[in-house]
Amino acid sequence: MIVDHEHSGQHGYISDKDRYLARLKRIEGQARGIHRMVDEEQYCIDILTQISALTSALQGVALGLLDDHLKHCVVDAVNTGGEAGDAKIAEASQAIARLVRS
Amino acid sequence: MIVDHEHSGQHGYISDKDRYLARLKRIEGQARGIHRMVDEEQYCIDILTQISALTSALQGVALGLLDDHLKHCVVDAVNTGGEAGDAKIAEASQAIARLVRS
Amino acid sequence: MIVDHEHSGQHGYISDKDRYLARLKRIEGQARGIHRMVDEEQYCIDILTQISALTSALQGVALGLLDDHLKHCVVDAVNTGGEAGDAKIAEASQAIARLVRS
Amino acid sequence: MIVDHEHSGQHGYISDKDRYLARLKRIEGQARGIHRMVDEEQYCIDILTQISALTSALQGVALGLLDDHLKHCVVDAVNTGGEAGDAKIAEASQAIARLVRS
Repeated sequence: MIVDHEHSGQHGYISDKDRYLARLKRIEGQARGIHRMVDEEQYCIDILTQISALTSALQGVALGLLDDHLKHCVVDAVNTGGEAGDAKIAEASQAIARLVRS
Repeated sequence: MIVDHEHSGQHGYISDKDRYLARLKRIEGQARGIHRMVDEEQYCIDILTQISALTSALQGVALGLLDDHLKHCVVDAVNTGGEAGDAKIAEASQAIARLVRS
Repeated sequence: MIVDHEHSGQHGYISDKDRYLARLKRIEGQARGIHRMVDEEQYCIDILTQISALTSALQGVALGLLDDHLKHCVVDAVNTGGEAGDAKIAEASQAIARLVRS
Repeated sequence: MIVDHEHSGQHGYISDKDRYLARLKRIEGQARGIHRMVDEEQYCIDILTQISALTSALQGVALGLLDDHLKHCVVDAVNTGGEAGDAKIAEASQAIARLVRS
């Protein structure tokens, strides 16, 4: 049996990959739309509104991925026991800090 | 003389449009990169790091555009006098609130 | 006539000082409450909920003060003309950046 | 034996309680200082700077408490197994979302 690692992924923790991909396609479209708005010199406040919407959409994806990560990678590492769990939690806490501060 | 309104823009408040367009091109590339990372199921924490970087880049663009907006549109409206200035400031305050809360 | 500068204030830009003072009294009470929750080792998630509420309350005060600042100090400086207005706007933009990033 | 639940705490997950209490005392002092600055009508931008500093200090406490919570309560619940771990992670994810969005 041939396993296609390239496309099957190394982690497999993502609970609903198609939904994330669809959300990220919309996010790409939002980024392209903001570029076009600046190029067309649309009204600044309208551009800022779109940037706020894009930031919120990104936060939603980040919070979903983080929840998946805690539910799968962190739980697996805790079940493995010992330092593996501690290391995964320290890593998750640092990622949370970056999200809160960005 | 023919003025190309489509491309010359209706607002013209943006201090360095080429620089914004270059930053937004990079932001589009970052969004595309995050889509690819999820598609390839790369490590969740690495994806979160890229989302934090993209959020910071968007904030930088938003803060730059807001500064341009205050310097040009708001100042012009204040100089016009009366309610025009008040309305522009109320609108700017609402945009700032959306940025702070997003 | 004796002017009580200590209490009349040097700026006088605040649109409804009593309301701000009441909000800040509540914020002080919230901070004290969080200290007590940690001292009593109450449930961590409940403490985090209170910290989020306090952060939102502080943002509300900051956004209100910023709006007052734009409406009064910045408008006055713009009306004075020249570099005074530019300097006030640069200063306001820096304060906005600190709020967005904190 | 009499256990003083009121003061011994029900959770005991906090890694360095005295340090948190000292940080929260400083945060209370910062809140009181902002109240005084508004009462004395100090310069708005200086008040905003203090609010940004207080918000950052609160975020630091929240991130520390969350890290302690993941390391202790969540790990314990995962080790208990079954739905206990899932429930704790769902609860932690909601708290993280409130922090990111506040």
